[in-house]
Amino acid sequence: MRDEQEQRPDHKRSTKSEFDFIDALRQRAGAGGQSLVAGIGDDAAVVRSTAGKETVITADLLVEDIDFRRTTTPPYLLGHKALAVSLSDIAAMGARPLWSMVSIGVPEDIWETDFVERLYDGLLDLASRYGVQLIGGDTSRTNGGVVIDSIVSGECAAGMAVMRSGARAGDHVFVTGSLGAAAAGLRLIERGAHLAEQNLADDDSQKLDHVLLRQLRPEPRVGWGIVLGEERLATSMIDLSDGLSSDLNRLCTSSNVGALIDSALLPVDDRVTELCGRRALDPLQLALHGGEDFELLFTVNPDNVARLPRRVDGVEIKRIGEITDSGHGVKVSEGMRIWELKPGGWVHF
Amino acid sequence: MRDEQEQRPDHKRSTKSEFDFIDALRQRAGAGGQSLVAGIGDDAAVVRSTAGKETVITADLLVEDIDFRRTTTPPYLLGHKALAVSLSDIAAMGARPLWSMVSIGVPEDIWETDFVERLYDGLLDLASRYGVQLIGGDTSRTNGGVVIDSIVSGECAAGMAVMRSGARAGDHVFVTGSLGAAAAGLRLIERGAHLAEQNLADDDSQKLDHVLLRQLRPEPRVGWGIVLGEERLATSMIDLSDGLSSDLNRLCTSSNVGALIDSALLPVDDRVTELCGRRALDPLQLALHGGEDFELLFTVNPDNVARLPRRVDGVEIKRIGEITDSGHGVKVSEGMRIWELKPGGWVHF
Repeated sequence: MRDEQEQRPDHKRSTKSEFDFIDALRQRAGAGGQSLVAGIGDDAAVVRSTAGKETVITADLLVEDIDFRRTTTPPYLLGHKALAVSLSDIAAMGARPLWSMVSIGVPEDIWETDFVERLYDGLLDLASRYGVQLIGGDTSRTNGGVVIDSIVSGECAAGMAVMRSGARAGDHVFVTGSLGAAAAGLRLIERGAHLAEQNLADDDSQKLDHVLLRQLRPEPRVGWGIVLGEERLATSMIDLSDGLSSDLNRLCTSSNVGALIDSALLPVDDRVTELCGRRALDPLQLALHGGEDFELLFTVNPDNVARLPRRVDGVEIKRIGEITDSGHGVKVSEGMRIWELKPGGWVHF
Repeated sequence: MRDEQEQRPDHKRSTKSEFDFIDALRQRAGAGGQSLVAGIGDDAAVVRSTAGKETVITADLLVEDIDFRRTTTPPYLLGHKALAVSLSDIAAMGARPLWSMVSIGVPEDIWETDFVERLYDGLLDLASRYGVQLIGGDTSRTNGGVVIDSIVSGECAAGMAVMRSGARAGDHVFVTGSLGAAAAGLRLIERGAHLAEQNLADDDSQKLDHVLLRQLRPEPRVGWGIVLGEERLATSMIDLSDGLSSDLNRLCTSSNVGALIDSALLPVDDRVTELCGRRALDPLQLALHGGEDFELLFTVNPDNVARLPRRVDGVEIKRIGEITDSGHGVKVSEGMRIWELKPGGWVHF
């Protein structure tokens, strides 16, 4: 049996878990007023608005040297990513994004440069692609590094928000796009790789840039989120921010189900496979535990599988396994072996 | 003529102004989609929702050692204040607060203590007083200090959000509560004052605690905000976060009007007057330029002045002057003299 525990990337433990804390907070914040459909604990909060609509809201806090490094992340791409991670949460609710607020704290020396303008360039360019309006936020000075809090709100028809809790035994498990490139990109950046300055014809540089950009410029699956929500295709959904192993376990816990994933079906990014051989990185480990792919992981009732579009915005999906009953746990079949898939992604505490 | 420039508290300049940046950003973010009533540049953004309602949203980023010091701010009061400043923005739009999201970044050593729990205690206690639901947020580790981004959303009837831009010449200018205590409290804390540990009968300790708590535990004027908005009493409104001089100038600029304030009418906090004599602090300067009182500054058409309630939630209001035409500028009459009131409050950059 493969021991995926040993190879957990970025895993950090403290005596108090972030997720336990969020659970406790959810209980203290209460079961919800009349208007609150889902509060703390899904990809986004859902508030029932009037006239058959629900508002979906999410916040993502990005902290320098924890979530990004200023030396390796150009400000334009940082602005893109700050918005992308929140758009991904809205997509994971099956909702359509509408507006964004961004609060940003920067040290004074950075304020005096064009850093903040370039950051907003990246943010606004992505926002305009999806018709998302930047409506406000706050700016503050910091004595430390850059912090960005990205809030996005979206909308769906009442009762149509796709929760993590709707998966049922027998549902098929799908992911959009490909896995592992964002984590591979992070590791290569940590080893000194950087984006090619020019458009080199060189095939290897293009592959490297692709992998680095999956880390630096993640593409939220906004179109897929809207289709899966509006067409009632997904029974449950989560975005892959912490890694497939963590996020699938989270979805299964919320739904009180198990899952069986076939490792041969995982859409490991081709260029990750090609680049990894020479660099002592295991593509399967990256695909299972690597975070920040920002693909959508979702479940579909077998009766609805035929209704799934083949691609949305040029992005395909792949069936990777099946939901099982909760007694089965979350497992991976790899050839003849079946082993337990434990959460191995990033946790802050 | 009094030179209020010399006595500006906390004033900090850089070559690039935060407010100029926000202006530029507002233009780049666009005039607004169909659903955006007011974006960047008022106390909160306003989004038209369905069925005659408008959603009002605000974000406030609090950064350790810039906006608060952990050594002098107990975490319970920090949680209270983080929410209070955003509730104050919602009140300043004449809206009713509904839900809150809070993103928090903390260094690992703080995470291991009960700091975050105590912070949420303060936040949730204030939230429950106004029926506000905490619906989500994000947590992250930082390598620096504590950062808190507090987002609050509220609601008002369509077209009823009270903007900064609605003041007209002849309107009366009012403030809620009293002025100057929050700034006095900050100065006393900086000189080493702290809250009394016990409930001392000592009259002086009680006065000192009152002033310190105006800084550490500001009370948002939620009830006044709702009344002034729902009863269509205020033509324009802003909350006093940066100081009367800054915020009145901002309101006048947005409304393209001037104002004449009578210094004798300013509701300077009694206890500030009593404490300041012995401490070389000028109560009038604190009332004019001191930030963080979180009172509401609003304008009322003379025909509606008689309809104003005397007090809401035990808090009275005071007429302090009148709106004039824009050519007049923003001025203060002090006895026989009239002088120009320049912005003197806090700016981050």
